[in-house]
Amino acid sequence: MSTKVAIQGITASFHEVAAHKFFGKEIECIDCMTFVDLFEALKNDKADFAVMAIENTVAGSLLQNYGLLQEYHFNIIGEVYLRIEMMLMALPGSKIEELDTVQSHPIAIRQCHHYLHSMKNVKLIEKEDTALCAKEIAEKQLKNVAAVANEAAAERFGLEILERNIETNKKNYTRFVILSKQPIHEEKNDKASIIFNLPHDPGSLAKVLTVLADHNINLTKIQSVPIIGTPYKYNFHIDVIWENYGDFQNALKAIDSITLNLSILGEYPRENFDLLLS
Amino acid sequence: MSTKVAIQGITASFHEVAAHKFFGKEIECIDCMTFVDLFEALKNDKADFAVMAIENTVAGSLLQNYGLLQEYHFNIIGEVYLRIEMMLMALPGSKIEELDTVQSHPIAIRQCHHYLHSMKNVKLIEKEDTALCAKEIAEKQLKNVAAVANEAAAERFGLEILERNIETNKKNYTRFVILSKQPIHEEKNDKASIIFNLPHDPGSLAKVLTVLADHNINLTKIQSVPIIGTPYKYNFHIDVIWENYGDFQNALKAIDSITLNLSILGEYPRENFDLLLS
Repeated sequence: MSTKVAIQGITASFHEVAAHKFFGKEIECIDCMTFVDLFEALKNDKADFAVMAIENTVAGSLLQNYGLLQEYHFNIIGEVYLRIEMMLMALPGSKIEELDTVQSHPIAIRQCHHYLHSMKNVKLIEKEDTALCAKEIAEKQLKNVAAVANEAAAERFGLEILERNIETNKKNYTRFVILSKQPIHEEKNDKASIIFNLPHDPGSLAKVLTVLADHNINLTKIQSVPIIGTPYKYNFHIDVIWENYGDFQNALKAIDSITLNLSILGEYPRENFDLLLS
Repeated sequence: MSTKVAIQGITASFHEVAAHKFFGKEIECIDCMTFVDLFEALKNDKADFAVMAIENTVAGSLLQNYGLLQEYHFNIIGEVYLRIEMMLMALPGSKIEELDTVQSHPIAIRQCHHYLHSMKNVKLIEKEDTALCAKEIAEKQLKNVAAVANEAAAERFGLEILERNIETNKKNYTRFVILSKQPIHEEKNDKASIIFNLPHDPGSLAKVLTVLADHNINLTKIQSVPIIGTPYKYNFHIDVIWENYGDFQNALKAIDSITLNLSILGEYPRENFDLLLS
């Protein structure tokens, strides 16, 4: 029986591409229309794993998804970076100058703002999912209509790519995390995501970061998130990397007494993001 | 002549509400449909100031707006927090059970997901602006159609609020910053927004935070933002507060030599966010 992986969106969505990059093609994807559905699918054992977007280089962190992670107590066991590339696609044989309509998800339309607004006499229509827009053109054989979606959607639904990479910002990457009910503690793990808050003492964050540095732990992310209703109180979301697994274990012990509500969202092998960017 | 303030959106948008909270009602608002238009309006002296959303407690930082701030070299001279409250509104005399359509901006629709999906037999339509949806109902006298927008839009366009506070997350606050071409250096300023990056030395962030703490400077925000194309290099966005203006000036001198590309986005009097939350 193949591994079942919950994804947000339908087949050929960016989440499916991320799932294939991590698990390979031989998986069964469970489509979930919302992130809450995604968490419920994992909770109710409809899926063995879930793939969830957690941050984007243009839009920042998806704080709501951090909230869900804490609420459901699932574990991050891996990560995947994807470059967000948008293609203009239509029925085979279509010509750009004959298009009268372009349809996509509102965020995708915004991400391709410059290109789409340079097109003359074209109506932009917002729909709920990029891949669904492509699927609809294929199923209903819609002429003079194009979708903005990823390459996987063009392949899956047999559409022709009329223009590649129409996204305004070419440095647009989304980071996805792989979620499981069980944590994985392994020597080969070299990255972790942790959350904590701090006593209201001046310099308490500086102290935690100094202890981490003393244990050869490097930061790849830090973000404070206000805890609403508790003035001047914050959650700190921190991603750390290390060379020696023992250093990480010792660092955790050392910061336990100087943080409050320390929570390990997961430890996992890191993906070499910088290699993607070269 | 009244002060001209550029806002993103139209009259009765959340940006206008933020502008009135900061400047009072006797201003002339310059409507800008995009954030780039907003910056251009200030650059070309069509406006004396601009009001721009910078972060949201649910959605996080608007990183693109930080990017614009650095590109245009404008200065933050103030801040405003607004609770994002969404109302269901329609022509006076309307009844909820007679509605067949609800229209709003896609983000507003998502923020009211729970309420809207509990409504039976109602079609949801996405449009470009919350206030424009309200305006259209009033102008075209659309029966059985409701808009999701803020209270100001109901007042401005003479619609009746059928249901108050339909937003799913009641702890949804947006922080706006007030922008000017000229910085304001004043003793009464007690908050600043700064950006820097760091040499690739272990513990370099811990060192900066320790120096700030030694100068009695407290953090209200910290966020690392990857610099794409430069592996393991980050911009740090930090908001700081203090009791004595001199401490801030000394702290800046002290961190100048241990940071790279230190940039002051602005210093300003802080708004007491915690009072809003009590």
